Amino acid sequence: MDAAFDRDTAVAPTGGGRWRATVAESWGTGHSPNGGYLLAIAARAVAAAVQRPDPLSVTGHFLRPSVPGPVDVDVEVVRRGRAHATGTARLHQDGAERLRLLGVFGELGDLAGAAAGAGVDRSPPAIAPLQDCRSGHPELPGGIPVPLGRRLAVRFDPGSVGWADGRPSGRGELAAWVRLTDDRDPDPYALLFVVDALPPSAFELGVGGWVPTIELTVHVRARPAPGWLRVWLRTVSMSGGYLEEDAEVWDARDRLVATARQLALVPTRPR
Amino acid sequence: MDAAFDRDTAVAPTGGGRWRATVAESWGTGHSPNGGYLLAIAARAVAAAVQRPDPLSVTGHFLRPSVPGPVDVDVEVVRRGRAHATGTARLHQDGAERLRLLGVFGELGDLAGAAAGAGVDRSPPAIAPLQDCRSGHPELPGGIPVPLGRRLAVRFDPGSVGWADGRPSGRGELAAWVRLTDDRDPDPYALLFVVDALPPSAFELGVGGWVPTIELTVHVRARPAPGWLRVWLRTVSMSGGYLEEDAEVWDARDRLVATARQLALVPTRPR
Repeated sequence: MDAAFDRDTAVAPTGGGRWRATVAESWGTGHSPNGGYLLAIAARAVAAAVQRPDPLSVTGHFLRPSVPGPVDVDVEVVRRGRAHATGTARLHQDGAERLRLLGVFGELGDLAGAAAGAGVDRSPPAIAPLQDCRSGHPELPGGIPVPLGRRLAVRFDPGSVGWADGRPSGRGELAAWVRLTDDRDPDPYALLFVVDALPPSAFELGVGGWVPTIELTVHVRARPAPGWLRVWLRTVSMSGGYLEEDAEVWDARDRLVATARQLALVPTRPR
Repeated sequence: MDAAFDRDTAVAPTGGGRWRATVAESWGTGHSPNGGYLLAIAARAVAAAVQRPDPLSVTGHFLRPSVPGPVDVDVEVVRRGRAHATGTARLHQDGAERLRLLGVFGELGDLAGAAAGAGVDRSPPAIAPLQDCRSGHPELPGGIPVPLGRRLAVRFDPGSVGWADGRPSGRGELAAWVRLTDDRDPDPYALLFVVDALPPSAFELGVGGWVPTIELTVHVRARPAPGWLRVWLRTVSMSGGYLEEDAEVWDARDRLVATARQLALVPTRPR
């Protein structure tokens, strides 16, 4: 429990199905905590309540922005089955609900012994080798600070951060290598954070400014191997004021360990 | 309200946040009602409660099989905002919860006037012309009946139903044209059904038998134009006992009107 991520997502029961946590400042963009980070906190509370170790599928609806500081998570156990348990959680601060979670939990294998790519009918997406990637978090539009850059090491594929130099590619794709800066090994909870921790792939479509997540669903498919993760984001459709972002996370052994999809608002302020 | 889909997904308030519906036999596979059909019933109840017409993102967790007959849906309004409203619902029969839904509702545009494909950075997936497709629902493994074949007209791309002739392609893809048999125009609620109404794309990976859905999330992106819809299903990863299935639905004007992703169990019984 020495790693920053474990400390900053820890939940403690206060009785009556309630868990208490503290939202830290360092897992966000601008002054807002990262959505995937909040999802990890709420998921830990549900996992504790349903007594299953791993999130398999977790959906979060982001109702209002959260702020750093204490947070309460109220959990309802929906169903406790043999292999799976389903639960829902209300994450609230100062009497206002910020996040509603619905998820199913179980016990993931680590696919140890499985050949790389077993059961997967395609290869990891192309990404430049680590040493050819761009290090560090580029400055965001409007000069928004990126505190999570202290927590998450990122190496961007050079083909996917054209926006940082004012030349978006026009393809809504972003690929990067990531790992926690304290070298804590990735696990299913870190994956909930990682899928939502990079700049939006819509930046490469020319979108600028804040892209607020309405809903985010993450499937965790296996316990990731130690080492760098590769994250691949893609936005295909922006229409009617909404966009989606798909995420895939591949581990150091070339296994697809998580997928995510979010529905977000297209910012009205042009870049 | 003459169309079969509207009649069979109608909900009536009984007070105290409860809605009553009747699960019909004809929207399922085997003796089980289709998951997307149940999702549409629960979504109608939430939409009525939050007073927003359209589902934007809806997640369903399937807890226990449902059966034809009366069903109650208890709705909790989570948040009613200016543009969006979030709600959750418990669908239950005989005292046992069958489905938990969490979703956000609003008002979708029909993108009328938008050029085909506006805001979408790629084209609809390839599918054979209607007249070259295979008509009707192929017999399922084990001779399971497909009552929904009376409700949903399907034309399968010949390249994606190899399993029906005992020759799965090895690619987890299925493409088909679909429309309701009574020629009712598609709408967002019909899309909730359509994303889950075809045989699993995993059949083309050699999987046989029932593929129970654990969780299904649907994003509805626009009101579909009248006419045939194209549905494209894909399963990329089967591992650790789970598989995912992604769905895209394109309308007659070449617009991406819905996407879906589900987490399901890999059947243990080999085909």
